[in-house]
Formats: sequence, structure tokens, C-alpha cells
Amino acid sequence: MKRLVLLRHGQSVWNLENRFTGWHDVDLSERGREEATEAGRLMARHGLAPDIAFTSVLTRAIRTCWMALDELQRLWIPMIKDWRLNERHYGALTGLNKAETAAEYGERQVHVWRRSYDTPPPPLGDEDPRHPRFDPRYAGLDPAVLPATESLESTLERVLPYWESVIQPAVGEHDSVLVAAHGNSLRALVKHLDGLSDEAITGVEIATGDPLVYEFDDELGVRDRYSLRDGG
Amino acid sequence: MKRLVLLRHGQSVWNLENRFTGWHDVDLSERGREEATEAGRLMARHGLAPDIAFTSVLTRAIRTCWMALDELQRLWIPMIKDWRLNERHYGALTGLNKAETAAEYGERQVHVWRRSYDTPPPPLGDEDPRHPRFDPRYAGLDPAVLPATESLESTLERVLPYWESVIQPAVGEHDSVLVAAHGNSLRALVKHLDGLSDEAITGVEIATGDPLVYEFDDELGVRDRYSLRDGG
Repeated sequence: MKRLVLLRHGQSVWNLENRFTGWHDVDLSERGREEATEAGRLMARHGLAPDIAFTSVLTRAIRTCWMALDELQRLWIPMIKDWRLNERHYGALTGLNKAETAAEYGERQVHVWRRSYDTPPPPLGDEDPRHPRFDPRYAGLDPAVLPATESLESTLERVLPYWESVIQPAVGEHDSVLVAAHGNSLRALVKHLDGLSDEAITGVEIATGDPLVYEFDDELGVRDRYSLRDGG
Repeated sequence: MKRLVLLRHGQSVWNLENRFTGWHDVDLSERGREEATEAGRLMARHGLAPDIAFTSVLTRAIRTCWMALDELQRLWIPMIKDWRLNERHYGALTGLNKAETAAEYGERQVHVWRRSYDTPPPPLGDEDPRHPRFDPRYAGLDPAVLPATESLESTLERVLPYWESVIQPAVGEHDSVLVAAHGNSLRALVKHLDGLSDEAITGVEIATGDPLVYEFDDELGVRDRYSLRDGG
């Protein structure tokens, strides 16, 4: 039986400060680190030993992946980092305090930016130092693929080709695959795997640090789906 | 200017216990972890920011690589793990205490096993649970390539093809490449890069946790070589 584990990173320093994060590279808080280790412990208890892991190029997801694998004594498996598993890019909201943003733009507007399927926040300007083209981790990429903002929909549009070309084939080749990523890049995968509508996915919350397991049949159809923290 | 950094992992738990380690997967001691972080600090101070890292599939080297990159705030670079960067396989001596082994086989014999270029220790039997064919991290490999013992010479014979096919091309493509590995897999690279004789390399000691930097010209010839702990 093939299994895929989706793991959302735990609390980051900016979660604590209530700021929009997106592609900004903040690290896990102490609690976030504990969540990552606990996720590894849960996976071990359920006999989940990943053969390969995928994560984003953002430290909070990479560290979550590492700490879970460390707990599983499987630091030696391949761990592939790719920007297409990054969190949704929050555009010009990146780094802003959520309460201050609501005071400036109104609660209703901020709710749309946060929860609608296809409305992106205002984009970053080309010269904005927060633009990904100034970040060395994206230096090898065609600048045309780098977003200045993203909706959930546009996040899906870069996550799903990566699923189809890289992760899904890995699920076919291995018994157990781990994807340690972010709320919205994981939503893209959940929408696809669960066959959810554009509207339904906006209401789905993926819990931090709670390994979400998909079991596949031999044709890579989803056979079962459960969260480990809920008791497996 | 192209730069390659060779970094030998710091003290492991079995170094402390004075046991032959080889392919046995022991972790770093507390001191080994401090050495790894200090290596990252030294690299940062000398403006060395690796674009890609290579390490073995043994935890002590992987963790050294991770801790140095963590200190450099570069956990997001690709980190490739390959068994061909593993420590020399110590055959039937794996796990034995060095003093007890000397008492049993004689100081002279143990010195030959440890320091000769081409004499391997006695091999592990096919059914020995320490044989790499029982270790899941080698499950995807052709069993014929897995050693039951190695001399320094046979270690070179698997490290150098990996250098030529993977690491050297990466040095050509990137400004700065990190290889975090083991005393004998790094000796293989040093012998090749410094053009040392079979006899000369057996006398070379690579210090733990001390980044050894090679600078290359545009044709990938070695232009300079220095250790960072010695002051760069």
C-alpha cells in the first residue's frame, strides 16, 4: 500500500506576531519546533517511515521536515526542496500586521484577500525589496515564473504541475512519501486529491503539525484519508 | 572565482567510545555539534555561502552539513546525500573497541588496517547483520556495489567517480560548493585535488570541523588551498 503524508509546518515567529508571511522566510517558534518533533513521533507510532521527502525552499517547512525525519531516524532519505511548494505569496501584504491591515483596508477587504479563491492581494512592485527576484534562492529561475502576489487559485496553478510531474511519480515509486509544506500549498494538494470545488477548498483548514495521511490503491486512486492526531 | 569547501564531521558518539565506526550510523556528540556550528560560523566570517551541498547517507555527516548551513542561514540550498561519500567501510572491525582489537590482533596488524593504503580489514560475512545489504538506506542499490570491507584505495575507487560525474560538474556550475563528509572519503578528494601519491595520502590528517577551502581557476584547476581555522 502506497502512502502520502502531508504535514503543515508548525507555528512560526510571524504567526506569533500576527503578520502576513507568504514567501518571507521566517523560522519556526519554539512551539513550532515542538509540533514538528511531535509530528515525527506520531508518524513513528503509526509505522510511517518515509522513503523520500519534499518541502519548500522556506526555512519553516524545511525545518519541520528535518525535525520530523530526525525523530524518525531517517535523516538519510532524499529531501527535495522546491519553490513550487512555497506558501501562497501574499503580495504587498507581506510583513504587514493583520490587525493594522484590517484597520487600513477594512475587515471585509482583508477577509476577501485571505479567504477568496481567486482574488490576490495587491502585487509587490518590481523594485520592492520584498520581490522574490531579489532573493538568491530564486536566482536560477526564469524571472517570469516568480509571482508578485498570488490567490489560492494561482498557488494551485504552480503546485499542481509539480504534483503531477514530480510528487505523484514518487508516490508510484515509493511506499511512503512525505510532503512538509504550508497551509495553501497543501490546500492545493488536498483540493486535487479530494476532488473539492473552488468554493469548498476555501473553507478547509489543515491543522499545523498534524500528519494527514492518504492511502492509495495500485492505480494511485485515493483509498483512504485520515489525520494521525485524530487517532489515525 | 569557484570555491569548494571540504568539511569533516566533528566528534561522534563512537569517537568518544573509541570504536571503529565506518558505515555504522552513529550520531554526533555534543562536541561534534558545536564543531559543526562553529564551521558554519567560520564560513560565514569568510564570506563563503554555498549554493549546493553534498554529504553522505550517514547521520553524523548529514547533521554536520545541516548545522553548518543552519548557521549560514542557507538551509534552502539543495543538499544531496550519496552513499559514495560515506566513510571507509571498516569490515569486521565495525563496532569493535580499538584498544580491545589491538589486544586481540596486535598493535602492528591494527596499524596496517588503519593506516595502509590498500589493506582492508577482514570482510563482514554475507549474513552478518552489520552488512550494508540489511540497511534500508542501500535497498535501492545493486547489492554488487555494496562493500563488506574497504581499504583507503577501494574507498577512493567509489568516491572519485562520484567526484567526476557529480561534484566536479557542480563546481563548474556554482560559485561555492560544500562537501560535508568523513575522514577517508575526504582524503580521496584531497589525494586527487593535491595530486598526492598513495603513500603520501596515508599520512594526511583532515581536521574535524575545519572547513578546507579549494579555489579553482576557470579551467577548474586548483589555484589555492587553505583551512579556515588556521586563519584562511
